[in-house]
Amino acid sequence: MSDLIFAYEKCIKPYKNVYELSCCCRIHFLQVEEVEFDGPCMKTEVPGPRSKSVVQVNFFCDYEESKGNYLVDVDGNRMLDVYTQIASIPIGYNHPALTKVMTDPKNMGTFVNRPALGMMPPEQFSEKLVNGLMAVAPKGFSRVQTMACGSCSNENAYKAIFIWYRVRAGPWTVTLVFSFFFQVPGCPDLTLLSFMGGFHGRTLGCLATTHTKAIQKLDVPSFDWPIAPFPQLRYPLGQFERENAQEEARCLEEVEDLIVKWNQKGRHVAGVVIEPIQAEGGDNHASFDFYRKLRGITKKHGCAFLVDEVQTGGGSTGKFWAHEHWGLDDPADIVSFSKKMLTGGYYQKNSFQPDKPFRIFNTWLGDHTKNLLLTEVIKVIKTENLLDQAKRSGKVILEGLYNLQDKYPHLLSRARGIGTFCAIDVKDEDTRNNLILKARNKGVVLGGCGTQSIRFRPALVFTEHHAHLFLDIFNDAIAELK
Amino acid sequence: MSDLIFAYEKCIKPYKNVYELSCCCRIHFLQVEEVEFDGPCMKTEVPGPRSKSVVQVNFFCDYEESKGNYLVDVDGNRMLDVYTQIASIPIGYNHPALTKVMTDPKNMGTFVNRPALGMMPPEQFSEKLVNGLMAVAPKGFSRVQTMACGSCSNENAYKAIFIWYRVRAGPWTVTLVFSFFFQVPGCPDLTLLSFMGGFHGRTLGCLATTHTKAIQKLDVPSFDWPIAPFPQLRYPLGQFERENAQEEARCLEEVEDLIVKWNQKGRHVAGVVIEPIQAEGGDNHASFDFYRKLRGITKKHGCAFLVDEVQTGGGSTGKFWAHEHWGLDDPADIVSFSKKMLTGGYYQKNSFQPDKPFRIFNTWLGDHTKNLLLTEVIKVIKTENLLDQAKRSGKVILEGLYNLQDKYPHLLSRARGIGTFCAIDVKDEDTRNNLILKARNKGVVLGGCGTQSIRFRPALVFTEHHAHLFLDIFNDAIAELK
Repeated sequence: MSDLIFAYEKCIKPYKNVYELSCCCRIHFLQVEEVEFDGPCMKTEVPGPRSKSVVQVNFFCDYEESKGNYLVDVDGNRMLDVYTQIASIPIGYNHPALTKVMTDPKNMGTFVNRPALGMMPPEQFSEKLVNGLMAVAPKGFSRVQTMACGSCSNENAYKAIFIWYRVRAGPWTVTLVFSFFFQVPGCPDLTLLSFMGGFHGRTLGCLATTHTKAIQKLDVPSFDWPIAPFPQLRYPLGQFERENAQEEARCLEEVEDLIVKWNQKGRHVAGVVIEPIQAEGGDNHASFDFYRKLRGITKKHGCAFLVDEVQTGGGSTGKFWAHEHWGLDDPADIVSFSKKMLTGGYYQKNSFQPDKPFRIFNTWLGDHTKNLLLTEVIKVIKTENLLDQAKRSGKVILEGLYNLQDKYPHLLSRARGIGTFCAIDVKDEDTRNNLILKARNKGVVLGGCGTQSIRFRPALVFTEHHAHLFLDIFNDAIAELK
Repeated sequence: MSDLIFAYEKCIKPYKNVYELSCCCRIHFLQVEEVEFDGPCMKTEVPGPRSKSVVQVNFFCDYEESKGNYLVDVDGNRMLDVYTQIASIPIGYNHPALTKVMTDPKNMGTFVNRPALGMMPPEQFSEKLVNGLMAVAPKGFSRVQTMACGSCSNENAYKAIFIWYRVRAGPWTVTLVFSFFFQVPGCPDLTLLSFMGGFHGRTLGCLATTHTKAIQKLDVPSFDWPIAPFPQLRYPLGQFERENAQEEARCLEEVEDLIVKWNQKGRHVAGVVIEPIQAEGGDNHASFDFYRKLRGITKKHGCAFLVDEVQTGGGSTGKFWAHEHWGLDDPADIVSFSKKMLTGGYYQKNSFQPDKPFRIFNTWLGDHTKNLLLTEVIKVIKTENLLDQAKRSGKVILEGLYNLQDKYPHLLSRARGIGTFCAIDVKDEDTRNNLILKARNKGVVLGGCGTQSIRFRPALVFTEHHAHLFLDIFNDAIAELK
């Protein structure tokens, strides 16, 4: 997209009879039928008077007026979006390919009649899964189960692991009656191992494996399951290889110890769940070697290996799935997804398909509307080589962040990232939050993660041009910090 | 709708180049721009060759061709749908009001850009909630929280209860750090009381309160929470008032005993969760008096009262919410919904709003597309008086079921229902399953529940005419049973 021919057009029109956008310009990309803007355009502080007049949220948006990488709010502010609805907009706002899907009369039956996909799917259901989700399945996966959101995806993936673990050990049909109550052997005392700093959702099963902010767990009953330390690495990773390798070895040893101990006390570890990059927890990375060794430990001890790609999946790391960077032939048993995939769900190995129907089931099992949209998203990603775009833009972002932390060493540190999936640390939480607000008022939407990090989560249509624009504005915002 | 003028039109057109529907007729309802059929039209057994050729599910559907109360499958079979995608189609297939919403260009921004509703909602979000969900809020509720599906609705409603229970007892901020691990006091050992035969979803928190089929719980770790007996009543309820009242008294006593005992052992019962009619568990009713007394017990012991209206809500009992039949001024603390409401979510009393932001949160918090559709559904329900329609059609269904169980006493028993939310028992599970298949091959889609019941779940546009048609075909199917 960087070599597109474009023409400027003066934009003088009333904005919902409230604001005149006369100062703003539009860029018409002539190569595709897409309209983007030439940059942010701020009318008010954000949230502005119209946002504030409605109710207390971050701010209200005008999704009709938003385009490509630009989010427009109800006060007419146009912002470069480097957060994309918590990393869930894959190819920018109002992409013409998606509008086309939504206006295609032959899709109308799917949009207005939501099927119970597990019982009465539409005819083209399998075809859409083949051209959509299965077209980007990680190597080794021939099955996918759709779900409505990230939490439901992990909840059901956990169930698939527990069922797999027990069915492998032999049938338990005689104990069926016991499972009506909380009672072994029907409801077994199995566990999942997760990591400090990991985030896998907020429903009760997921929450037992989520360990980011205490406020997310406070007051809610939980399962007593093993929690391993996640490596606390020094960045840039390449400069601290020896120290980081030691830290990772320490964590892996702890993982193996925990599995052995919990198995010995009869609370068997059925699976290990981990993100390729801990996102909500603060964009914490581990080396590809760490993950390869972790995979080895799970195999050795007969635990399932679940890679949670809810935030990392969908292309922003420069590969469709972040765990594909690890270079394993057999990377995982289950890979869960949601967000940029538009539908939730998980890929599973054949052996994780439950032995009986209706063991993994709910009314809707996802939303076929999202499958139709996803199929187009995947076509756009392939046609426009957006994975390569993410690599190129990511390079600009990361180099820019390195420069900024060199320029402001008292404020910024630990720049890190793969593709556009980047982050940087700010000296403390208050300064981080202040910086996000300053950037927003200058026309860049950002989101925090961990206690003092900013995560960058642009859409896949974020080009080098947008990366430079973002860095310029971000620099201005930092310069304003006292 | 029963007094609509209609005209017949011979329908001779190729069906996707596969079948000629020359034998079938269409009815044009001239009063509304709606096309329905005059009855079922069967081409093959169901699943037919085209359904079977795809993959192993119940059968595949043609959602473009389906209309009103009629579901058309990929083999061209047109069936009267008395199951409606597990009770989740509110006003029939391809209702013109919904098609209009989906083709309205000003909604396109919402359809192709899914917002993170908790952070950056669209401007009209509050307005749509006011005209949609809040327009049908049960008495006493001024807050609603949307979610993506029924399970997520209950999971988060449970969390809201636990948070409410603890915040009421005083702040626990000093214990924040403990909740990172499974450890009191951060993660308290609170419980929820549920009922045998209840169904509240299949994610891990919900599953701890679900007690229908053992296969749904087998092999999955669960919480050890109190389970009370649900009254086993004799039908028709009016004929067995004394026995039923005794049975209900026994269950209520057990509920109170359980709460007292669990509180005494320090595993406090924060809430009680119940359906107004146990649906998945076998369409088990209790008297309105039972629910009123149960509400009293929860108040006496300081437990929250959560009414799960995922299946009963949305109008099929003749009131918008089934629990409105109970005649309480203050019926519940939380009411959860999904299915016919198109979006999941729950209404909550003000005191159940968490004390801090982000305690109940996820990326999408529902799907605004569904809110737009629901707003139209609610308009149609009001304009067309569909709650009254459900009462009238329900009367025909229930009287028909009484007649059938009188006619086939060796096969059928326990006809029961409110509005169109009806059910009947068949002598055993195999006969029940066989009867459902026979009815399907004669053009009526039905679903089972419990071990030997059939549940009837037509859409709200199911008229007396459809009820009679259904009863005729159902009678024919029963007559064929050996």
